[in-house]
Amino acid sequence: MAPRGHSADDVARTALRILDDHGLPDLTMRRLATALDVQPSALYWHYPNKQTLLAELSDRIVGRMASGPAVDLGAEAHALRDALLTYRDGAEVVSSTLAMGLGSSLALDRLAASVVVRGSDVDTARRIAATVLHFVLGFVWHEQQRLQYDSAGARDDDARPSSPALASSAEDFAFGLEVIVAGLHARA
Amino acid sequence: MAPRGHSADDVARTALRILDDHGLPDLTMRRLATALDVQPSALYWHYPNKQTLLAELSDRIVGRMASGPAVDLGAEAHALRDALLTYRDGAEVVSSTLAMGLGSSLALDRLAASVVVRGSDVDTARRIAATVLHFVLGFVWHEQQRLQYDSAGARDDDARPSSPALASSAEDFAFGLEVIVAGLHARA
Repeated sequence: MAPRGHSADDVARTALRILDDHGLPDLTMRRLATALDVQPSALYWHYPNKQTLLAELSDRIVGRMASGPAVDLGAEAHALRDALLTYRDGAEVVSSTLAMGLGSSLALDRLAASVVVRGSDVDTARRIAATVLHFVLGFVWHEQQRLQYDSAGARDDDARPSSPALASSAEDFAFGLEVIVAGLHARA
Repeated sequence: MAPRGHSADDVARTALRILDDHGLPDLTMRRLATALDVQPSALYWHYPNKQTLLAELSDRIVGRMASGPAVDLGAEAHALRDALLTYRDGAEVVSSTLAMGLGSSLALDRLAASVVVRGSDVDTARRIAATVLHFVLGFVWHEQQRLQYDSAGARDDDARPSSPALASSAEDFAFGLEVIVAGLHARA
């Protein structure tokens, strides 16, 4: 019997809200249970462990990038960045889920599909997709860390004026992506 | 007066050992103080806060990549990956330090210098260096997450045999880097 009528969807939606409001370190099964007014043990009805729950959140985050066939690598990478930025710590949720061998392969699939339509073989396309995925996750991870430190007032912008910050604007993202796509074309 | 004769170097070396043995989440000022047999307050003599300590660790990790003039972007990127892999959670320590606006700019400087020697202007070189840095940090972050999950026996390799893992071998790293360098050449 499902606990107190909460569906798996209820649990995931509440977890996403806690993630966005408080960040990944504060998304505990205990806090989630309190928000749903159930015992922590009741959550395991839907998600046998926290990793399984995070994989569901990861799939929901990445799922925002899907819309029609994937035909352009740059567009897919931008859509992935936008999806990750939708929720606080989105890059960390998705990266850790992939590292666990969990979650859907939607991001990799869409990136690879957009390389295949340009004529690459499937193996090469998946490796290029992985390169782009690592770049996007690394970039957005950095962006989201900065956002978090900025909101906490913890960044030390004045302490090292001589140390140029690591580029992390939308323009820098587009630039990096262009370099990778140019490399793809150069190899083709 | 410095606490119990521990130098800043002692504190940093012990912190690196704890990082490597237990990982970043378990590197607390309390645990560090216990390992040094001092009160936590004594640590603040050398490091006013944990962020400052992490920045010192980040500089020591990245400092492993320096040896002679930087002339080859691929070699610098490989040296950075090797440096990050030397300590558990190295990518997370360095990325969070950069996001805080702390730490040295050695990694970015060496990557950029190896682009400048090929004739790029300084601004373009720094943006390309940032692209490579995001890729390397994203890649090694994923590698280190996998290492951690593997050692904890937590990865779910059997659950989704149909979902190909995100590429993360040394060969995949070299491949991704080649694509980025090819893109740099294509732009030049």
